[in-house]
Amino acid sequence: MTQLYAYGIGTGTQNAQGKWLEAWFPQPCLQPDAKLSSLLSQWLALSGQPLSADQVAKLADQLGDHSYHAERQLLENLSQGEGTLVLSILPENVGPTDVPAAYLKLQLLSHRLVRPHQTDLTGIFACLPNVAWTSEGAVDPTELEQRIMNARAQGRTLVVHSLDKFPRLTDYVAPSGVRIADASRVRLGAYLGEGTTVMHEGFINYNAGCEGPNMVEGRISAGVFVGAGSDLGGGSSTMGTLSGGGNIVISVGRECLLGANAGLGIPLGDRCTVEAGLYITAGTKVRLLDDSGQEVGIVKAGSLAGESGLLFRRNSLTGAVECLANRSAIELNHALHAHN
Amino acid sequence: MTQLYAYGIGTGTQNAQGKWLEAWFPQPCLQPDAKLSSLLSQWLALSGQPLSADQVAKLADQLGDHSYHAERQLLENLSQGEGTLVLSILPENVGPTDVPAAYLKLQLLSHRLVRPHQTDLTGIFACLPNVAWTSEGAVDPTELEQRIMNARAQGRTLVVHSLDKFPRLTDYVAPSGVRIADASRVRLGAYLGEGTTVMHEGFINYNAGCEGPNMVEGRISAGVFVGAGSDLGGGSSTMGTLSGGGNIVISVGRECLLGANAGLGIPLGDRCTVEAGLYITAGTKVRLLDDSGQEVGIVKAGSLAGESGLLFRRNSLTGAVECLANRSAIELNHALHAHN
Amino acid sequence: MTQLYAYGIGTGTQNAQGKWLEAWFPQPCLQPDAKLSSLLSQWLALSGQPLSADQVAKLADQLGDHSYHAERQLLENLSQGEGTLVLSILPENVGPTDVPAAYLKLQLLSHRLVRPHQTDLTGIFACLPNVAWTSEGAVDPTELEQRIMNARAQGRTLVVHSLDKFPRLTDYVAPSGVRIADASRVRLGAYLGEGTTVMHEGFINYNAGCEGPNMVEGRISAGVFVGAGSDLGGGSSTMGTLSGGGNIVISVGRECLLGANAGLGIPLGDRCTVEAGLYITAGTKVRLLDDSGQEVGIVKAGSLAGESGLLFRRNSLTGAVECLANRSAIELNHALHAHN
Repeated sequence: MTQLYAYGIGTGTQNAQGKWLEAWFPQPCLQPDAKLSSLLSQWLALSGQPLSADQVAKLADQLGDHSYHAERQLLENLSQGEGTLVLSILPENVGPTDVPAAYLKLQLLSHRLVRPHQTDLTGIFACLPNVAWTSEGAVDPTELEQRIMNARAQGRTLVVHSLDKFPRLTDYVAPSGVRIADASRVRLGAYLGEGTTVMHEGFINYNAGCEGPNMVEGRISAGVFVGAGSDLGGGSSTMGTLSGGGNIVISVGRECLLGANAGLGIPLGDRCTVEAGLYITAGTKVRLLDDSGQEVGIVKAGSLAGESGLLFRRNSLTGAVECLANRSAIELNHALHAHN
Repeated sequence: MTQLYAYGIGTGTQNAQGKWLEAWFPQPCLQPDAKLSSLLSQWLALSGQPLSADQVAKLADQLGDHSYHAERQLLENLSQGEGTLVLSILPENVGPTDVPAAYLKLQLLSHRLVRPHQTDLTGIFACLPNVAWTSEGAVDPTELEQRIMNARAQGRTLVVHSLDKFPRLTDYVAPSGVRIADASRVRLGAYLGEGTTVMHEGFINYNAGCEGPNMVEGRISAGVFVGAGSDLGGGSSTMGTLSGGGNIVISVGRECLLGANAGLGIPLGDRCTVEAGLYITAGTKVRLLDDSGQEVGIVKAGSLAGESGLLFRRNSLTGAVECLANRSAIELNHALHAHN
Repeated sequence: MTQLYAYGIGTGTQNAQGKWLEAWFPQPCLQPDAKLSSLLSQWLALSGQPLSADQVAKLADQLGDHSYHAERQLLENLSQGEGTLVLSILPENVGPTDVPAAYLKLQLLSHRLVRPHQTDLTGIFACLPNVAWTSEGAVDPTELEQRIMNARAQGRTLVVHSLDKFPRLTDYVAPSGVRIADASRVRLGAYLGEGTTVMHEGFINYNAGCEGPNMVEGRISAGVFVGAGSDLGGGSSTMGTLSGGGNIVISVGRECLLGANAGLGIPLGDRCTVEAGLYITAGTKVRLLDDSGQEVGIVKAGSLAGESGLLFRRNSLTGAVECLANRSAIELNHALHAHN
């Protein structure tokens, strides 16, 4: 029995040489049923290739013959547009090897069909071309100056929003129950659970995100996942594995608070707080305090990875970083979420 | 005698079900005179409702009959556009209960007709719908995927700038004597006094702002007001009442300096400095130093709320947070303002 | 012999009164050869003036007569557009005195023809007008409300991206080998060497930049230059000369790491690290440690300006800022650059 991992019917943009710049899959599908898997498997050789009008017509017929009417409708709607039609078929969950496959995987994440780390993104960086994201769509950077020239010649203004391998999530997906105050701060491939608010200073990279509800005013680096009810204060930082975090994958449990301008270099369990302005790394030596405020030992913060119910602060008289049991996290978060 | 609190003649966008998404009032008016108040009071039942062509014509006639020629002209100019005409009439300064009233209040702030906290915004959050702010205007988020589909089909690119309850100030108001380097960082409802520069890392929320002149490279949270001549360094944070500040309303007096990456959880008086990188909260214990550098006591920073002439720093040898009399704030600010 | 410093053939936007708002020079030229310098010198009186069709034709003929075919082609291409043609000729490297000259100098930087501090920008701030950068091009702020009105009347949405003296680099130049995740964060006049990645939280001001390759997730203030292989962590700050840095020009050598949310108020040599969350200013007193961790003295950080191989950290038990020999900087950076 054939069982595909995922597939998408979409439309994409190519550069002047016919190389893909991006691909949009309005209804990406994880684990299509056996009959559809079987049908699509016959198209595997064309996965990631631009489809001709004849191929589109043939695929539409096959979908119709097997009563995949919604899929047929999508294909026909897309074929009336100006983009190039493309089918991406992923038999297995392995790293993407062409541009449409990479875009399909990013859209699986942002459509909440998979969570961060659940889909294999090995090699995606090398796979994705750099693109100028403009008011006139995706443009190859080497063609950008000519496009600016053409636009000026015709009295138009070509606005370049980004020059990057990843587009904005909101130009591809409109997740329900979410606010993103500045769309340029959330990459396609981010996972935003229902009830997520990303304020202007918030940021979410690809293969990262939060469970929802969450208030995100800080930066969620690639690979980082934040549990329900946790809040990242303005300008707070989570250390990416490439930016000093080493091999530790950072995560934040539920009902945690990372204060404004704070930073996190270790995974947190649930109900933890890091005080505003304090940066904790795995190597930070921390004084452990008991309920009466007495020091009971000194440990590296890395040894507290994943523990729940901790409060990290810097003693403002001694300058020492301290860790004690957390009392206030829950009440604070409840107040915040009333305004999500 | 009738005396209205405020009114606006505007044009708005509705979703497919006829619900308001936003409303633009190019010339919002605070406290119209008695005659105009009396005239408009007869339209109160239609406040916040879409106006028909007949109603617009009738209102235009009435305005003309009473010699409100500028108001009539505005109404007629707007009626030639594609938006839906709307009149918002606020008899009293109470929390807004419909979308046009909420937008009118936000525009009173950004037109500098009222300062933060002067207009009652109770309930505005629940009142405002979430909106996709796009290159083709305001779109209901539930209609966004179809709009992206339509745009792609017609060879256009729909760019989504934001998915939020609040739009950018600059798409509604062009305040004089102001620079806003990245317009996505200032919400409608922010108050920017003459001479305000908001750099790329600056941010101003609604019902917040600064008196002007000010250099804003940090974040002014909802409810926070900053006095003339004060500067917020890059990445600096002011604690919102919902983000750990509790019930304390944060404000910054005149000629203060919040250093880069610093943070503030208490109100400051005039001529205060918080050193770069230092986060002061109400609970921070602070060593008070006299002119000779001798410690004269230890207090919580909250007890210094509103005091003038203070310098907060962290002693880089002892790690203790110290507070002493400020000497350098004024000279520094003068240099900065030469470049506003 | 005539030898011009630089010149550009471009097209610009004027406001309703015929004052320049901006000028675009697609192929700015540093030090044109003697023959071209001589030819252009005859046009010096028209430098910075709008050119008439006759003048453009005459200049095209002269360029053609002297075999400057590429230059003639550029002029003719531009003359078919809707912008106003402009020639900017700079006999010497002095501060700009008109808008086209200021824009030409900024484009010399962003085209990598000069490095920061190599071209004289004295007076550029006063020279540049404030401009509303919109989806319909450069607009005089005093004309903005009318333009919003017109756009709404015609069913268009005028999006204002910025209200600033400086536009975005990417609307003028497409530098090779560069990624800029959020184009609104890099001003025209920034210098981005090949291999530079500016992430969403990165920022580069005019007359500032980096040699490349570099990973920029922090803020490069005006005047600051960063050497090859150095990385600025998320939210890190470099102090501008106007923002507390005084007269010290901040720079960062090669293979340095400024940690996330860190800050720098002194110039660094090569292979230096500032720990995440630590802000070093010239006045910060620092404990110097030897290889065995013994304190060998206390100095102000300013006295270490320009030194190589230093690691700055705050001892998390004593709160003291310490400086010791750096060991880990190089390995870390190599990992980061694999992903530029």
